[in-house]
Amino acid sequence: MKVIIDAMGGDNAPQAPIAGGVRAVNELGVDIVFVGKTDIIKNELKKHAYPSEKVSIAHAETLISNHEEPAKAVRSKKDSSIVVAANMLKNGEGDVLLSMGNTGALLAAGLLIVGRIKGVLRPALATVLPSAKGPKMLIDAGANTNCKPENLVQFGIMGSIYMKGVMDIEKPTVGLMSNGEEEGKGDELTKETFPLMREAPINFIGNIEGRDVMEGTADVMACDGFVGNVILKTVEGMGSVVGREVKSIFTGSLLTKLGALFVMKGIKSFRKRMDYREYGGAPLLGTKKPVIKGHGSSDEKAVFNAVRQAKKFVETGIIDEIVKHIN
Amino acid sequence: MKVIIDAMGGDNAPQAPIAGGVRAVNELGVDIVFVGKTDIIKNELKKHAYPSEKVSIAHAETLISNHEEPAKAVRSKKDSSIVVAANMLKNGEGDVLLSMGNTGALLAAGLLIVGRIKGVLRPALATVLPSAKGPKMLIDAGANTNCKPENLVQFGIMGSIYMKGVMDIEKPTVGLMSNGEEEGKGDELTKETFPLMREAPINFIGNIEGRDVMEGTADVMACDGFVGNVILKTVEGMGSVVGREVKSIFTGSLLTKLGALFVMKGIKSFRKRMDYREYGGAPLLGTKKPVIKGHGSSDEKAVFNAVRQAKKFVETGIIDEIVKHIN
Repeated sequence: MKVIIDAMGGDNAPQAPIAGGVRAVNELGVDIVFVGKTDIIKNELKKHAYPSEKVSIAHAETLISNHEEPAKAVRSKKDSSIVVAANMLKNGEGDVLLSMGNTGALLAAGLLIVGRIKGVLRPALATVLPSAKGPKMLIDAGANTNCKPENLVQFGIMGSIYMKGVMDIEKPTVGLMSNGEEEGKGDELTKETFPLMREAPINFIGNIEGRDVMEGTADVMACDGFVGNVILKTVEGMGSVVGREVKSIFTGSLLTKLGALFVMKGIKSFRKRMDYREYGGAPLLGTKKPVIKGHGSSDEKAVFNAVRQAKKFVETGIIDEIVKHIN
Repeated sequence: MKVIIDAMGGDNAPQAPIAGGVRAVNELGVDIVFVGKTDIIKNELKKHAYPSEKVSIAHAETLISNHEEPAKAVRSKKDSSIVVAANMLKNGEGDVLLSMGNTGALLAAGLLIVGRIKGVLRPALATVLPSAKGPKMLIDAGANTNCKPENLVQFGIMGSIYMKGVMDIEKPTVGLMSNGEEEGKGDELTKETFPLMREAPINFIGNIEGRDVMEGTADVMACDGFVGNVILKTVEGMGSVVGREVKSIFTGSLLTKLGALFVMKGIKSFRKRMDYREYGGAPLLGTKKPVIKGHGSSDEKAVFNAVRQAKKFVETGIIDEIVKHIN
């Protein structure tokens, strides 16, 4: 199993992708090929110990930054780390691609270079979010806007296959994100999607609402990518505001610091459960080969967990299952 | 100033609407007419002391429950508390209407009975949410799905007028909720809306994202009601999950209870700032007379604050301002 890692993508590149990747070589036994500027990667690798036969480098002269227009950049920058990595995946020089870089560029590379599975109308970005009932999937989390009902149904099918394979949930429940629980609620898109969902080969539980995101009512939450992106960022933003606030309360005085000591164990355990770094990255579902988008702010631990997830993505044959179920 | 309160609507009716209303009579000097079953209201009023000339009752034989189809119920149940109250507002038997009941029914009553301001295409439900930078407005929070660009622009204008009048913000900033900050980001609706927003008589600051909801980047967040409803409920759901979790951490053992004592003051102050009950209800903006939707789970304090807000809604002449600016 060889994992292709875009060593240049993300806020903490190249340190985090390389540290996390090397840790995965040592602890999970995978092979890794790092894609990016050879001298930079070589330099960074010197900090780590690993079996040298399991790590290689593929040179890419440039990179696509977060500010570039994705599709245009993918078309024009053939020597960027994301494009080189996507071509390697396509050509079988690795089993799965992981990048913490420009989300749009990775999606465009997935679509234009790796290619769609036959029958998949639009591949989707699927994010695994923490909830009161464990990790749940939000799909689409931002790859597609102005979706059609057929897109949402495919998101439900692909999400179910992934949650079964990678998260070991036997019959994942699928909810349709709407503005009310009752069947009649929704906008034009969700109202048209509802009856199609009921006919689809999934464990459909009906409409869900925003409050179900953190309650964890459904294993797979299907929605348009505009809505999914807004949900994802609302949750992240709220997490960061609450986190800052709690920190400031706890460090207010000597007394609050003492109080914090007593509750720190519980707080830490809660934070761990709510930590995006525990859940790896966001798989792109619907491409011919597995592509995973790691969080832009990923540290070594987040990259390591994303590689573990990438390994499971390949081993469980998710792609073959999607091919089998979508037509 | 006379406030019309639907005494039968909400999870805690009739106790909370009546207790909160009576408190407003005593502390704010408003007149109140409670609408609902006379004997039930009379019985409840016995628990309270107030100047009798400032409180009256308007009889309504039935009510519209949360499970009824709103528009149909408003058309058929002429003797329900919401319909009676809306007719009183229309006929000038009160200055503002407050209900904690069925949201859809109140919206339908606002539209069908109270009526739209000339030029307002679709009245919107505007919710005031807490944020790191104080209360901010989310408009539309669920009244309208499948909006047109012109609707969103009007939401921005009406929201600005309200935030200036009721929240005393001199030049409220308006953000367009999207899936990215850059001008080119968005779905078809927001991309078409962006240039219109820039031409509108508002302090438009461009696209905002989900993370800006809790950060409080814009005073007015304009969006389609489907998206607004999902945001609102996502925030509420996350608040409730985090609240439950913190409570369980603090009550875990004698030691954590002791620790909780030391940080309780800070936690309480934070909770107060994040408490929807502090911010009153959600105004319906765009109707000929002021209508406010109180939270379904409102207690006495939330109702009291909603009446205070209703008073300001009337006194600051928001409706005249909307008439002046929309055409």
